[in-house]
Parts: sequence; C-alpha cells; structure tokens
Amino acid sequence: MGLNGKPLVSIIGAGMSKFGKHDGLLGREIFGLAATEAFSRCPKLDPKQDVKAMFIGHMGESYEHQGHMGATIADWIGLRGVAATRVEAACGSSGAALRTGIYAVLSGLSDVVIVGGVEKMTHRTTAEVTEYLAMAADYPFEQFHGITFPGLFAMMATAHMNAYGTTEQHLAKIASKNHHHGALNPKAHMQKEVPVETVMGSKYVAWPLKLYDCSLISDGASCIILTKPELAAKYTDQPVHIVGSGQATDAIGLYERDSLTSLQSTKLASKAAYEMANIKPEQVNLAEVHDCFTIAELIAYEDLGFCALGEGGKLVDSGATSLGGAIPVNTSGGLKSKGHPVGATGTAQAYEMYLQLTDQADKRQVKDAKVGLTHNIGGSGATAAVHIYRRDQ
Amino acid sequence: MGLNGKPLVSIIGAGMSKFGKHDGLLGREIFGLAATEAFSRCPKLDPKQDVKAMFIGHMGESYEHQGHMGATIADWIGLRGVAATRVEAACGSSGAALRTGIYAVLSGLSDVVIVGGVEKMTHRTTAEVTEYLAMAADYPFEQFHGITFPGLFAMMATAHMNAYGTTEQHLAKIASKNHHHGALNPKAHMQKEVPVETVMGSKYVAWPLKLYDCSLISDGASCIILTKPELAAKYTDQPVHIVGSGQATDAIGLYERDSLTSLQSTKLASKAAYEMANIKPEQVNLAEVHDCFTIAELIAYEDLGFCALGEGGKLVDSGATSLGGAIPVNTSGGLKSKGHPVGATGTAQAYEMYLQLTDQADKRQVKDAKVGLTHNIGGSGATAAVHIYRRDQ
Repeated sequence: MGLNGKPLVSIIGAGMSKFGKHDGLLGREIFGLAATEAFSRCPKLDPKQDVKAMFIGHMGESYEHQGHMGATIADWIGLRGVAATRVEAACGSSGAALRTGIYAVLSGLSDVVIVGGVEKMTHRTTAEVTEYLAMAADYPFEQFHGITFPGLFAMMATAHMNAYGTTEQHLAKIASKNHHHGALNPKAHMQKEVPVETVMGSKYVAWPLKLYDCSLISDGASCIILTKPELAAKYTDQPVHIVGSGQATDAIGLYERDSLTSLQSTKLASKAAYEMANIKPEQVNLAEVHDCFTIAELIAYEDLGFCALGEGGKLVDSGATSLGGAIPVNTSGGLKSKGHPVGATGTAQAYEMYLQLTDQADKRQVKDAKVGLTHNIGGSGATAAVHIYRRDQ
Repeated sequence: MGLNGKPLVSIIGAGMSKFGKHDGLLGREIFGLAATEAFSRCPKLDPKQDVKAMFIGHMGESYEHQGHMGATIADWIGLRGVAATRVEAACGSSGAALRTGIYAVLSGLSDVVIVGGVEKMTHRTTAEVTEYLAMAADYPFEQFHGITFPGLFAMMATAHMNAYGTTEQHLAKIASKNHHHGALNPKAHMQKEVPVETVMGSKYVAWPLKLYDCSLISDGASCIILTKPELAAKYTDQPVHIVGSGQATDAIGLYERDSLTSLQSTKLASKAAYEMANIKPEQVNLAEVHDCFTIAELIAYEDLGFCALGEGGKLVDSGATSLGGAIPVNTSGGLKSKGHPVGATGTAQAYEMYLQLTDQADKRQVKDAKVGLTHNIGGSGATAAVHIYRRDQ
C-alpha cells in the first residue's frame, strides 16, 4: 500500500492565509481564512459531514496563551464534534501533522482528513518570540546557556564553511533567490527583490549569518484536505497525490550530533520518502525546503541528494535552484520571503506543491512540473518530515 | 478492519513511573522510567530495531521551558532516528496520542509504535500551574475573564445539582472511593484513605468543589507499546487488545455548549468506541474515567452509559463503581489519588487496563475482568478520547 510510487493519499483542496501581519486576528481566525479557501477549492466536499479528523500543527501556546488548539480550531471553523488534535514538532509541526494525517487516512478510520498549521507571532516582541522559539532547543544543554537559533545555525554554517569552502556569498545568493521568488507570490510576507549586495551589507545576527540570512517572524495559517486515492475523483478533477512520506529524528542537542554539516533526520526521512515513491532525487522537478536560515537550505540540498555532500555552494552558483533552473527550490519564496509562522510552514509547503502541480502558481509556475518534494524541519533539525507529490499525468 | 470487536491493535508492554514528586528529574528522565518498565515487560522487543514511531502526550511546554518533546524523548530513551511527535489535547493529550498511535499501526507504515505521555509540574508554584493549565480553556472568552478550571467544573457541578438533585455528599463519596483505590496502588501519588467526612470538611476551592474534590498536581510519565494484532504473539503471551476507539470534540468554551451537565465529546467518542467494539456499556467490567474533579467522574458515568442521565448520584450511592461493585471505576486511584501529571494521564489509564487485564493489579485486581474502558478528556471537555480493551479469553 502506497509503495512503489502508488499514491498514499490524495490532496483534494488546499488553502493558505496571506503570511505577514494579521493585527487584531486570533490564530483561529487566521486558520479560518486558510480553511475557507480550502473548502472553496473543493466545493463537492461537505465539511461537516465528510471530515473525520483534523491535525493542527501549532508550535507555541505561549504566543496567544492558548493551548488545546485542535479543539479550538475545530470549533471555530464549524467542525465541532470532529476528532481534532494539535501536533507539535517545533517548526516542523505541520510537516508532522501531515504525516499524522496520512496515518489517519491509511488507517481506514478517517476517509477525509484536514491537516494544517497556524501561528500568530507578530504581536509579540522579538525578545518574546526568540524565547518561545528557543523552547524547541534542548533546555538544560542549550537554552540554559543562552544559545538561541541564529547561534545554532551559525555554528552549522561555520562548520560547513570550514569543511567545504562554502562562503557568505553562497548564502546571500540563496536569500536573494528566495526573495526573487517571493516577489512573485501575492501571499508572501515580504514581496520584494533583495539583491545579493543588500544581503551582504546587512548587519550580522550571529556570524556568518546576517539579517537577510534569517527567515521572518510572521502570522499565518495553511491547510490541505486529504482523502484516499480511490475517493479523490469524487471530490476533484485535479488531485495531487502524495507518493512518499518520511519522518525522522536526530539528537535534540547540536552538541550530540555526529555531524554539524548534515542532518541525520533529513537523510533518514528523505531516504524513506524516496523509497516509498520509488524515485531518485534527480526525478524531483521542484522542492520547498526549510530555509529558516540560508545555511539550512544549502545543507538540505545535500541531505536531500540534489547534489553531493559539500557541493551545495556550487549548486547555488549554477542557478539550478532558481526559477527556470533544473530544480527550482522555494518557488513560494520559502520561509525567507514568504514568511515563517512556524506551525503553518509545513503545510504551506504542501500548499505550494498543490498550486504548482495543478498549474495554479501563476507567475512562479514551474513548467511541466510532475513531481515535487517538501522538507520541513523542527528546531535545529532534531525533527524532519519529507513528502513527495505527483500529479496524475 | 477493527470493527465488530476484532482487535484494532494489541498492547504488548506498558510502563509507568510512580506519580508524585520527582525532584531533580527532567520530564524526559521521568519518561525514561516508564519506558524502561515497558521494555522490561516486553523482552522480545528490540526497541531500536522494531519501534517505528512514537507519539508523546505533553500538555505544557511552559513547565520545563521545553517544547519539541517528541524528538527530546526519542533521543533520551535511545531511539534517536525514529519518527517522534508530540501530541497535545490539554489533559487529554495522551488519550489523543493513543488514538494517533492506533492510526499509525493501522496505516501499515508502523508495525510497532510507542504512545505515552509525560508532565513535570511540581517544581512550579500553584499559581504557575494554574496559569499553564488555564491555557486549555478559551483565551478570549474564558481565561481573559479570570476563569480557571476549578471554576469551570464548579459551574458544571452546580448545574448538575440544580437539574438532578446531585449533592456534595455524592461528590465526596467519589473522592473517598478513589482514595480507597489509590491506597492500594504503590505508584499512586497520595496512597491514603480519605473518609467522606474529611472531604466534606475540606475548604472550598470553588463552591461546591472542595479541596478533596480536586485532582493532584503531580510529576509522572506512562507509556504503552502497540502492534498489529497478528504480530502480538511474536512479542508476548498476554496481549491486551484495543477493540474500540473514539475521539471527539465539544465547544472549547463552556458558554457555547448545548448542556452544562453532559459532554458532547464523551458521548460522541464513546458511541464510536462502543460501536467499533460491538458492545454495550453494561458489558464493560471496569473503567478508568477522567476525574480531574469529582463532578467530572459523575458526569462521565452518565455520558458513558453506565447509568441514565441524572442518575450518577444514585450510582455512587449504590457502590457499583467501588472495587467489588458491578463496574469498578478508577481502580488505580484515578486522577484524584493516583495523581494527574496532565500529559501522562491518558496512557496511565491504559497502563491500569494493561495490569488489570493481565491479572497484575495485585490488591486492586478486579476478578474475571475481561473488558475495560478508558475515558480521557482535555480542558473542560472540549476533547474526549475513549478506548475499549479486552483480553484474549
């Protein structure tokens, strides 16, 4: 079941709020924007009747002083009664929610399932957000000593520079590329071009990472509707199938990892997903990868097999991961330009795949895209979820 | 699959830390105690090789300033690499984790799955714990106005007293019964008899609920190991099968519910579980129900069909729910006496079923118990998870 490229589940609708600032709205209301779009894209669905379970990726109850987000959102979007569960794996929360939703559909207990994610962050100060995000790192061995995420990813960047000759310029090119893509996405938080020189001239946050190497603090929500492949035709003429799924962990603390320049979680998760989809990395036409910092995207190129270990910098230089290249990465703008409302990021990546594989990505459409991949990580990479998508023909 | 009383999944091992105060231990270490016991009860399992997924119920990242508890625990118990996800549904977190684990086994993607839960609470002040727990209630319409959980359940109690003539004495009898049971459980937080008079003489927390109507603030962890029924014999001679599972939601805010004296979530979840197990409430031999406050246990009797609506008080008076009665409830001591480390409660209920249905419950063993039920709720009942268990013969 689901092996050898056969669909595990099919996406029959998807929705996403604009990412950015949503002053005065609660997280549940922002999720409502995403759900409304998803329902409108799937008019044959009777949500109240058909939806059997919901999994909501939500990273931090501190932002809104609101836990129990599964039931809260089910209630708000008119689905009171349905089994609804919050799933948390730090910034990988909705990637893990997607995995959980796939389990639920395959189980035979839930024919139609909503998976999504939400975060409301911009009403908090940067210091508060930094503290809440830090909870995804190891408390006794990382947080306690004052290390926050820019510092953790900066250590990975310096290790990569030392091992492979990667440069700040390589990282700046990734930032600039993702801003170029995001400028074409009307739902992106920061829709503007950012030249490489601007990235290089921005102030250091944690050397070698500068302001423009970091993703954005955003409000936003996203969701997709899943069903069994054999039921998809009942709901839509344009299903997008998920043909591979992998989730895995690495050590929570960076200091315990075998490597600082590679994530074991990404390698294990992508290996499982590729095997299930029965494809090789070179068959992927486009990908959304977790660029919380530019170095994370570069490392993902290597761990996902888009290039050899240590060759991420060369891949950037080649232009292959830009729109028009051999494997465009983060056509949505990525976390860098589209924004990173942490709980919403995983299913926002799936939303971009839905648009691209149904030819609805407008100015950033990848021509003849058949196979896509999403890669969502939590914390400094202790969690990774990788999914592979394909269209019908 | 799984219908008509056929096993959905089988429990092949279970573990629980003592509930109480674990000064100086982190949550992950307390979970390690539970996992070690579960592994020792299933010596044929090779955890590193066999376990494919973990779902960890964990309610509050604030207690230990630690989110990302799935990966944190996988790492700590030696299962780095495995797909591990935190599941949160307030005090129903590990009931929801159990449901999620069932999906994962039934999906065919994960033959052996660990589901569990953990909370470390006692190092915090009562004011801090009250605040963190309150996040499970509706922020804008409940928390904001200063309502905390004793107040919410007190409103349910007064409504029930008004509608059905339930008395404080009825509630006190539930407290005393659960303390009697807990006095027989060496892992309970408060192993002492508490006479009805002591309950009645304790100070009011929120009228009509008194100190001894409230469950305990505890540290603790619990877990169970699930597999496919057809694989159970490979691991154990004494599997306990889960034959029914239901999860559902009610409105997050009490003010929006159709009734204050009944939980729609419990009714929907138990209806689904009974149908799946193909049994009626009167066929249940024992149950663990969510007695965060004594009124919650009384309402559960009615919503689960152990008696008619409004007859909960009479059921208490009859002694049917005490050890030796027709349907002993909370033989473990319940949340009231065993303790309530919130994220751990759902799978601690499953742990009690595992002991009872394998004749390992010692002084509190229910004779000839064949069928058991667990009922775990989140918040004031916006989430409920109900599971039904039976032994092989």
